[in-house]
Amino acid sequence: MPQVVILMGSKSDEEKISPCVDVLRHLKVSYVMTVCSAHRTPERTVELVRQYEADGARVFVCAAGMAAHLAGAVAARTLRPVIGIPVSGTALCGMDALFSTVQMPPGYPVATVALDKAGARNAAWLAAQILALSDPELEARLMEERAAMSLDVTRSGEEIRQKYA
Amino acid sequence: MPQVVILMGSKSDEEKISPCVDVLRHLKVSYVMTVCSAHRTPERTVELVRQYEADGARVFVCAAGMAAHLAGAVAARTLRPVIGIPVSGTALCGMDALFSTVQMPPGYPVATVALDKAGARNAAWLAAQILALSDPELEARLMEERAAMSLDVTRSGEEIRQKYA
Amino acid sequence: MPQVVILMGSKSDEEKISPCVDVLRHLKVSYVMTVCSAHRTPERTVELVRQYEADGARVFVCAAGMAAHLAGAVAARTLRPVIGIPVSGTALCGMDALFSTVQMPPGYPVATVALDKAGARNAAWLAAQILALSDPELEARLMEERAAMSLDVTRSGEEIRQKYA
Amino acid sequence: MPQVVILMGSKSDEEKISPCVDVLRHLKVSYVMTVCSAHRTPERTVELVRQYEADGARVFVCAAGMAAHLAGAVAARTLRPVIGIPVSGTALCGMDALFSTVQMPPGYPVATVALDKAGARNAAWLAAQILALSDPELEARLMEERAAMSLDVTRSGEEIRQKYA
Amino acid sequence: MPQVVILMGSKSDEEKISPCVDVLRHLKVSYVMTVCSAHRTPERTVELVRQYEADGARVFVCAAGMAAHLAGAVAARTLRPVIGIPVSGTALCGMDALFSTVQMPPGYPVATVALDKAGARNAAWLAAQILALSDPELEARLMEERAAMSLDVTRSGEEIRQKYA
Amino acid sequence: MPQVVILMGSKSDEEKISPCVDVLRHLKVSYVMTVCSAHRTPERTVELVRQYEADGARVFVCAAGMAAHLAGAVAARTLRPVIGIPVSGTALCGMDALFSTVQMPPGYPVATVALDKAGARNAAWLAAQILALSDPELEARLMEERAAMSLDVTRSGEEIRQKYA
Amino acid sequence: MPQVVILMGSKSDEEKISPCVDVLRHLKVSYVMTVCSAHRTPERTVELVRQYEADGARVFVCAAGMAAHLAGAVAARTLRPVIGIPVSGTALCGMDALFSTVQMPPGYPVATVALDKAGARNAAWLAAQILALSDPELEARLMEERAAMSLDVTRSGEEIRQKYA
Amino acid sequence: MPQVVILMGSKSDEEKISPCVDVLRHLKVSYVMTVCSAHRTPERTVELVRQYEADGARVFVCAAGMAAHLAGAVAARTLRPVIGIPVSGTALCGMDALFSTVQMPPGYPVATVALDKAGARNAAWLAAQILALSDPELEARLMEERAAMSLDVTRSGEEIRQKYA
Repeated sequence: MPQVVILMGSKSDEEKISPCVDVLRHLKVSYVMTVCSAHRTPERTVELVRQYEADGARVFVCAAGMAAHLAGAVAARTLRPVIGIPVSGTALCGMDALFSTVQMPPGYPVATVALDKAGARNAAWLAAQILALSDPELEARLMEERAAMSLDVTRSGEEIRQKYA
Repeated sequence: MPQVVILMGSKSDEEKISPCVDVLRHLKVSYVMTVCSAHRTPERTVELVRQYEADGARVFVCAAGMAAHLAGAVAARTLRPVIGIPVSGTALCGMDALFSTVQMPPGYPVATVALDKAGARNAAWLAAQILALSDPELEARLMEERAAMSLDVTRSGEEIRQKYA
Repeated sequence: MPQVVILMGSKSDEEKISPCVDVLRHLKVSYVMTVCSAHRTPERTVELVRQYEADGARVFVCAAGMAAHLAGAVAARTLRPVIGIPVSGTALCGMDALFSTVQMPPGYPVATVALDKAGARNAAWLAAQILALSDPELEARLMEERAAMSLDVTRSGEEIRQKYA
Repeated sequence: MPQVVILMGSKSDEEKISPCVDVLRHLKVSYVMTVCSAHRTPERTVELVRQYEADGARVFVCAAGMAAHLAGAVAARTLRPVIGIPVSGTALCGMDALFSTVQMPPGYPVATVALDKAGARNAAWLAAQILALSDPELEARLMEERAAMSLDVTRSGEEIRQKYA
Repeated sequence: MPQVVILMGSKSDEEKISPCVDVLRHLKVSYVMTVCSAHRTPERTVELVRQYEADGARVFVCAAGMAAHLAGAVAARTLRPVIGIPVSGTALCGMDALFSTVQMPPGYPVATVALDKAGARNAAWLAAQILALSDPELEARLMEERAAMSLDVTRSGEEIRQKYA
Repeated sequence: MPQVVILMGSKSDEEKISPCVDVLRHLKVSYVMTVCSAHRTPERTVELVRQYEADGARVFVCAAGMAAHLAGAVAARTLRPVIGIPVSGTALCGMDALFSTVQMPPGYPVATVALDKAGARNAAWLAAQILALSDPELEARLMEERAAMSLDVTRSGEEIRQKYA
Repeated sequence: MPQVVILMGSKSDEEKISPCVDVLRHLKVSYVMTVCSAHRTPERTVELVRQYEADGARVFVCAAGMAAHLAGAVAARTLRPVIGIPVSGTALCGMDALFSTVQMPPGYPVATVALDKAGARNAAWLAAQILALSDPELEARLMEERAAMSLDVTRSGEEIRQKYA
Repeated sequence: MPQVVILMGSKSDEEKISPCVDVLRHLKVSYVMTVCSAHRTPERTVELVRQYEADGARVFVCAAGMAAHLAGAVAARTLRPVIGIPVSGTALCGMDALFSTVQMPPGYPVATVALDKAGARNAAWLAAQILALSDPELEARLMEERAAMSLDVTRSGEEIRQKYA
């Protein structure tokens, strides 16, 4: 029974969204990822939300581009936290997906993260941070992971320092 | 039985959207206007769409600001033409509502018109032009109305010309 | 006698606009596509509009980039619904074409759809939805097509779900 | 001991952020609100985060305008979920605060909500939804509140329908 | 017989465009100002262009907001230089009018100046500079005017210097 | 003695600006093109403007990217019409160059044309249209050229019509 | 002999720029403020730069709106650090002034600060920080001032905390 | 002991930022370059700032993309001038990094330069210009370098002039 449900609006978003899965796996957070569309499969979207919620899903992650209504459509049907990843296209620099995801009306927030791959990774992080509120072991893994990331930056820093010395 | 159904996402849009009603009345097109929200009343939205469609509605007009998902939510549930009026707020210059309304995925178009009051008027016009395809009297009224608008511009032109001569 | 007239402002838009034809063919909607320019061939544009309208055209689809005046120029000469497809260029992220197409003054709406290829497909859909108001067989084809699209999303969803399980 | 810590970058944000408090009070979620600045009081910011976290705070809400680094600075120091409210100024339409809040690097998400007052309300909602994952009574209150909001929209809808009938 | 023809797309632009007249009068350049619309009075627009051109008009100045097609429509019908003044509205920060005016296709330039009142003044200046190519007295007046403007800046500079010393 | 002086702010703009030369040659308008920079060679810029003006130059064309001050710097030193071509870079979608070129203060207009290659061609056209005010043969060539362009569009139109019939 | 020279492009910028003077006075940094324009008084601008530089000025602060070339024009004439304050107007949300100020070509940097009043204050701060590199007493005053600002935030924080407790 | 400290937020910025090193080397200004992150290594960032400042660093240069908080985080911890280089990503055209870097609150300026490589070069220039205030030999090298750049433009200008003659 997955704790995190990842929904992408179109199969074409797969490459940009798969880093979300990589992070969740690495953090040992259970998940399921599928495709559903606020417009092409509105009933299925509602149904998936209800079914996964009934199965114990605790966080929804929704990725969509263009008018990017998916996260909002999910947020309208659940009280579980909904995280939105805006996916940029070739026109409008991703502003379309970002504005469509973040500008939700009162009562129906979408926790919006960065665009594209950085956002996919951060959606996993945010979901894990929410779950870690009641999972000290996950919190420990997050802490380790951040320590590893810090170390990595520090090492890169030393490498760059020497290369340009 | 109204031919045009006007849905606004929030009562606060009333002032900007009422010109749509003024134009429809002037053109003698039957309409109904109500409030429903893609997020706050998603089921009611679906229900209203089905009910009004069953009652013979032929065009939907949806006005919303911010993430502006209403028109898309309606477009996902009907094959009737859906016209979207983006409503600007204080931040983001209305780009949020415009991009959220117009950037729909293939198969679920929203016929987007200008922002705010000009868009409200044009939504009425577009609805009327669609209905006029099978209503020659309405087409005649539209033609008269355009003639009146042309005349008005021509008169203003003459007035300005003399004032600054 | 074509029901839908597709006008593109420049032959260079062909690749982005041809999906409009693909969709119309698939939906068995008669069409004609040609090139005309609001600026380079203004008289021809007016003439084509009048001629095709006289021949029974019911919807105009206009695609243009940059200042993108074509849809507006057509809208100024006909009461048939005019659908505008903004075409993005390398600079200004397509905002030039989008704003130029959608921000029409009262009385002369352009039913604006998404930018580029998604918009080309949706222009065909919107035209078909308008025609379907008086063509139940077309409406049935649209319904089938949407069902096929839904199924496709559902299948992709299952595929993705298994791939990342 | 507050569950939600609201930090605003400047006292001048008070009017836009106080709706966050109104919603939390209404939902009976304990909170504390104070001012601290990523730039003017960086140490105090770090200290407050550590102290409130030690006291049992579970969610941080950060509101800031312009370069809006506060949410990111807090996110860098805690694994608790951090919610960011971008506050618009007179120039740049709020894009400065929005982009500065949402575009966080991998590992340090800020759950960004809408700009200004709508965002202030939604930050409270998102915090409450996160807390409700382990508080069924809060979840019930959220459900009631959403039902009340739905009813309110439905009533407005009826009112508008009659007014324009 | 006016040398400069000023066309505004709507009477509502009068206040923003009248500085163009002020400058032309001051520079003793003959002009005529009227209203015509690319969409509401397309034939009248073409006719006015032809008639004024036949009467000896040498420069056209066109002011319009929103989709702002007027300058382009005029440019399509004359080889006289066409100057465009974009007029900003409440939404989209004037980017709609600016992009619609300036992004003309090859062969049909619109000499675009700044938005609103500054642009209105500069349209007059640009028209005068073009006319001055064959009118040495006008060139002399322009030179004097620039000298006066320089002096004015220098005086303001001295005033400010003393005030804040 | 060249009638049109083309100044580009950097040699790297050559590829985007050379279409300006192609058009001027085709129209048999004499020109000179060189590089000078508002910032790197401010004195040389002033000197070139004075020298070319003394030699009989009648129109200046200035192309620049980024902060794009060149056209304004030239406009500050001459009463000849100055045409500005904004050149887009990789960041900011060309909005930097466009806004920097067009938003000139009263008294110092820059006749701004479209971005990049389309603008380069239109700068040549605009210069030629200005020169044609006192050169009927050039006006005739412009008319022929426009006729050729119209014909070209009409031919493309026919080609596209048949290809998609 | 002033250490900081403040130049504003227009007297109309006075209200937005005077906070720069307030800060400099408070920090006991000598300054002079005057008006000069890159376009209306280009020679005077060059002359003022040379004269003030000869008199010992160490930092230039330039404020301008719209195409905002002043800082760049000064940067082209001096090796002293040049600080630019973009001033927003009614259209384009200040993006015009910001992009025109910051996007300088290699070799001619403008140290750009925030838009409008916040930028005016920060220009003073940045100038003072540069001067403090060789003025330990000024550095001490800056440190005190920052401490006072921190204290102020801390006090506001306590006030807000109690008000909303 | 380096005079200029270059900090980049991520190793992935190396290619865009290395031109900063090239310029500093060419100008014989001592520097150190390393990686540190406002979010991943906040303590290390504070520590590096204090240590380098103690070692005599006089100017900090910070490069970051997306939410780009690094320069602000450094500015919050030092009174040395802080120069910010915004680094553009694939979405949002670099506006995210630019707005996040430049819109700093009063008292904590970041001297923002152009985006990407041009900004990297200009950060080096601005640092050198600040250092040259107390280093006449460096000022002389800057003057020579500018002279060389001017000469280069003049030569390019001559080359282009002949090529297109």
